[in-house]
Amino acid sequence: MTSETTEARVLDAIRERRDLVNAAIDEELPIRRPERLYEASRYILEAGGKRLRPTVTMLAAEAVTDVDPLSMDYRSFPSLSGDPVDVMRAAVSIEVIQSFTLIHDDIMDEDDLRRGVPAVHEQYDTSTAILAGDTLYSKAFEMMTETGADPTDGLEAMRLLATTCTEICEGQALDVAFEARDDIEPDEYLEMVELKTAVLYGAAAATPAVLLGADEEVADALYQYGIDSGRAFQIQDDVLDLTVPSEELGKQRGSDLVEEKETLITLHAREQGVDVDGLVDAETPAAVTEAEVEAAVDALSAAGSIDFAREMAVDLTERSKEHLDVLPENESRRLLEDIADYLIARGY
Amino acid sequence: MTSETTEARVLDAIRERRDLVNAAIDEELPIRRPERLYEASRYILEAGGKRLRPTVTMLAAEAVTDVDPLSMDYRSFPSLSGDPVDVMRAAVSIEVIQSFTLIHDDIMDEDDLRRGVPAVHEQYDTSTAILAGDTLYSKAFEMMTETGADPTDGLEAMRLLATTCTEICEGQALDVAFEARDDIEPDEYLEMVELKTAVLYGAAAATPAVLLGADEEVADALYQYGIDSGRAFQIQDDVLDLTVPSEELGKQRGSDLVEEKETLITLHAREQGVDVDGLVDAETPAAVTEAEVEAAVDALSAAGSIDFAREMAVDLTERSKEHLDVLPENESRRLLEDIADYLIARGY
Repeated sequence: MTSETTEARVLDAIRERRDLVNAAIDEELPIRRPERLYEASRYILEAGGKRLRPTVTMLAAEAVTDVDPLSMDYRSFPSLSGDPVDVMRAAVSIEVIQSFTLIHDDIMDEDDLRRGVPAVHEQYDTSTAILAGDTLYSKAFEMMTETGADPTDGLEAMRLLATTCTEICEGQALDVAFEARDDIEPDEYLEMVELKTAVLYGAAAATPAVLLGADEEVADALYQYGIDSGRAFQIQDDVLDLTVPSEELGKQRGSDLVEEKETLITLHAREQGVDVDGLVDAETPAAVTEAEVEAAVDALSAAGSIDFAREMAVDLTERSKEHLDVLPENESRRLLEDIADYLIARGY
Repeated sequence: MTSETTEARVLDAIRERRDLVNAAIDEELPIRRPERLYEASRYILEAGGKRLRPTVTMLAAEAVTDVDPLSMDYRSFPSLSGDPVDVMRAAVSIEVIQSFTLIHDDIMDEDDLRRGVPAVHEQYDTSTAILAGDTLYSKAFEMMTETGADPTDGLEAMRLLATTCTEICEGQALDVAFEARDDIEPDEYLEMVELKTAVLYGAAAATPAVLLGADEEVADALYQYGIDSGRAFQIQDDVLDLTVPSEELGKQRGSDLVEEKETLITLHAREQGVDVDGLVDAETPAAVTEAEVEAAVDALSAAGSIDFAREMAVDLTERSKEHLDVLPENESRRLLEDIADYLIARGY
């Protein structure tokens, strides 16, 4: 499915763009008065992150306009009618939305670590974290109004950004609500994943098509590319939690099971009659033994649940790449295909 | 300055529009899946509120286009070039932003009551309150993309909304930061009030001018009208806390003093050498006596601080009305002037 070469190409594409993205974040989000607010707003952005979504945005701009990778200034990217559009600002806008959701989600989920550093509400305080998220939210919208695109296209991009944010909130609300329920259907889970995770990939891929004046059909196809690869990514995440050794995973294998987090895998297993709640006795990831996780994984595997999830991730990835058929054949389109493969082939 | 007739006119103008605004809120924010999220998002909007900002938006639309009050359908309001614009949607968008800030501010300030009912984080929980605010935030942006205005004007209105939200966050951050400082300058206080409170009045007044295609000069003047009357409103709020009997105020008179909240009045008094921190011994509004408040008010009054604030509120109100000189003389413009007077003449 994916070769080491594919992964190398994707990591190169990300690496080649990361400094550009980071420089643009510096420019778009300067530390200004009140300094503490802007420092807190920048904190998670500076703690790392692959810049995968901005990379998707930049590649989609190139693929749609059929220009070579890195051949154009992203700050002044020629639209299909030749007028310059600040595609980089749109890319940063998407990344900034992602950061806002991480900051608020960490408060809600009481997650104290993010990207290896304390979460904003731990490093600062909850009030500052709420406000830092709110500031990133409006800053992202400010940026999207300032791409220089044709106003009709600019307004359409704003609409996409706003509905995407609403959907992310709906997805997070469903995720929180699921914790109190024991009768979730796999379809509901997939809907939650689509809203919470995939729509922002969709927006990252479709926004340049909108801003650069591509046909609606092209923008829709790129959106679906993002949706399907985003869903595959999240499902693969659930698989990796069970199948990758703890050392590689960077956290205890089977954490989701121990923490009773429902995934497509557990939902499928329940449908097959597996007593999912009885699989692991330990109550914290620190208390579980590898033997207990191994037995649980064997049971889920025997029920076909891990294969079920893995196959769905593969199917979604294939579908995501097919959406790109509307684009001209070029190097950036191939890199978008590589990214879809990479999202389900990566280690952790 | 203000007669009972002025107040009656303003209250009539608000009353005549409130049902329209509430019906539009129902239409723009239907309770849909996930229901709990949308119920929480609607909760404060349904608990009341004068709908003052939407009223300002509707009056500004009429004043700019020189039509009689209530003579047009706000959902299909003729722009200066004759094309229909959904001014009501813009008005609801502004009100929804106000609600979002109330919900998040109440979490940060640990205020458990709002509009006489439990705050959202009390009625539901903190996670739901964060998410309800985030949802209102994106919904407000969604609405503003859907006014049907000329795209250039629509994008400009989005820009105004986004920068306004950023400024509100900055104002709230300054307000929080001020709590830990004892060296705040009156000018800093006024900057905080402008950002935290006044800019949204500015946006409420200027947005219809932008959407309906008025000259930039007109939009700017309406924005300044909102800024100056919004600042006057907040300063008057500080005066009322000291001068209105507790029964009328609906809370203990002098609460700001007891809670050591800096206002323009205390900052002025400090400059006059008054030992503001020594004015009230009680540590909670419940523990303070009327006699203690009375003595404190006398000391602030003797220092000229209450008059200083009151005069500034009056000056700002006069200035706010002068900005309206760029508009044609009509009934809606007079009502906007009345609202400015009302904001500093109201009881509580």
